Amino acid sequence: MDNELLRGHMNDCINWIREFFELNGPGCNAIVGISGGKDSSVAAALCVEALGRDRVIGVLMPSGVQPDIDAAYTLVNHLGIKHFEVNIGDTVAALKSAVTEGMGSELSVQSVTNISPRVRMTTLYAVAQSHNGRVVNTCNLSEDWVGYSTRYGDAAGDFSPLCGFTVDEVKGIGRLLNLPDVLVDKVPIDGLCGKTDEDNLGFKYATLDKYIRTGEIEDEGIKEIIDKKHKANLFKLKYMDCFDPKIPVKAKQ
Amino acid sequence: MDNELLRGHMNDCINWIREFFELNGPGCNAIVGISGGKDSSVAAALCVEALGRDRVIGVLMPSGVQPDIDAAYTLVNHLGIKHFEVNIGDTVAALKSAVTEGMGSELSVQSVTNISPRVRMTTLYAVAQSHNGRVVNTCNLSEDWVGYSTRYGDAAGDFSPLCGFTVDEVKGIGRLLNLPDVLVDKVPIDGLCGKTDEDNLGFKYATLDKYIRTGEIEDEGIKEIIDKKHKANLFKLKYMDCFDPKIPVKAKQ
Repeated sequence: MDNELLRGHMNDCINWIREFFELNGPGCNAIVGISGGKDSSVAAALCVEALGRDRVIGVLMPSGVQPDIDAAYTLVNHLGIKHFEVNIGDTVAALKSAVTEGMGSELSVQSVTNISPRVRMTTLYAVAQSHNGRVVNTCNLSEDWVGYSTRYGDAAGDFSPLCGFTVDEVKGIGRLLNLPDVLVDKVPIDGLCGKTDEDNLGFKYATLDKYIRTGEIEDEGIKEIIDKKHKANLFKLKYMDCFDPKIPVKAKQ
Repeated sequence: MDNELLRGHMNDCINWIREFFELNGPGCNAIVGISGGKDSSVAAALCVEALGRDRVIGVLMPSGVQPDIDAAYTLVNHLGIKHFEVNIGDTVAALKSAVTEGMGSELSVQSVTNISPRVRMTTLYAVAQSHNGRVVNTCNLSEDWVGYSTRYGDAAGDFSPLCGFTVDEVKGIGRLLNLPDVLVDKVPIDGLCGKTDEDNLGFKYATLDKYIRTGEIEDEGIKEIIDKKHKANLFKLKYMDCFDPKIPVKAKQ
């Protein structure tokens, strides 16, 4: 996308963040989980633009040792925002152990993979509720499109500034905001199983981004994978299913 | 409400649960957090009616010692469902300790109150993802009306069978399903700070239920409290706020 066009969208997003806080938490702080990847970096930078650096708190959440935590520190130091490091390792271990004991059997691989994002969500809200905060969701459109997130984990939050931007557009915004290249171009690794996101998904974000914006995709097999993932994961982008008995409600709505 | 009318709504709900699973997880199990109160009891019983007892798993989640855990066992034994007891005490303690250390200051009271429900949600999903499950949300209409729940904690789940029924109607369904009186009429205590729900809210559920269904309420002060809580907590009943840059999307939706 043309840089000036993208700048317009970015400015709209900054205004939207400001309005979100005016409506939903005047004077509150934005609480951002900082992994050191492009999404959390750009989300935090947008909040700094919208609210000022004094109203943005970064939360670094390694689980035990995080080899690339330097990137997270690069970001918070670059932005000059207040930050906390909360190691979730013991919590994740305690939960795994309690559930394994309670079930009398091992957790599935999928189950283990999703514990950390949910513990991180719980950590972000614990910080938010102690620091007058609103939690930033840092998912982007490309990830959301194929459901590359954990429901009630990293898919949670109070507001989502990036969910309408592809990976490529998020990187573009990072460059417009003069974030260090090392953060914008960092290859995302899920931190859960050590693979890159693209390894896990089986296709390149560039392919997905182009498909989202143009409808064009060369490889029919990858198109099918993307369409299937999109359909199967749409539930993550809405409120849960609710039974409505259709009994009249007469209180003030 | 008339018993036969309520029975009709109950049967609609049972059919809806069955349809939810046919569409969203054929053959999957319903995973229900069992506190021993009326909501989890009735939700579990409805799932048993819809899916059969072999497809419902109860998860008891005391935090350390839960004085009224007998009620939870009464329920799972009454229904004859598979159940696990997962003690979340160590996990909650580990998280509190890690966040306190990371922030370099104590957690707020509100922050501490909301950790347990989020750890319970994480536990339920860990069990669900190891047992081919879908997680039941057990909130009722009266609680939801005033936001008496933790976002991404007990307010989470994959489907919500009771969210359209008042406390009084949930109890009525419990009686129609022949649940033990001790469970249906158990005074709800939040398990977080030891107060009853009605102590915490400052009004009786009977007053709220009547207001919801008839619009009538005698005490103008309580009406104001309810209306204010309702407005302030509506955000918990919808997906988070999302920025839409309005850039065209052309991939298959």
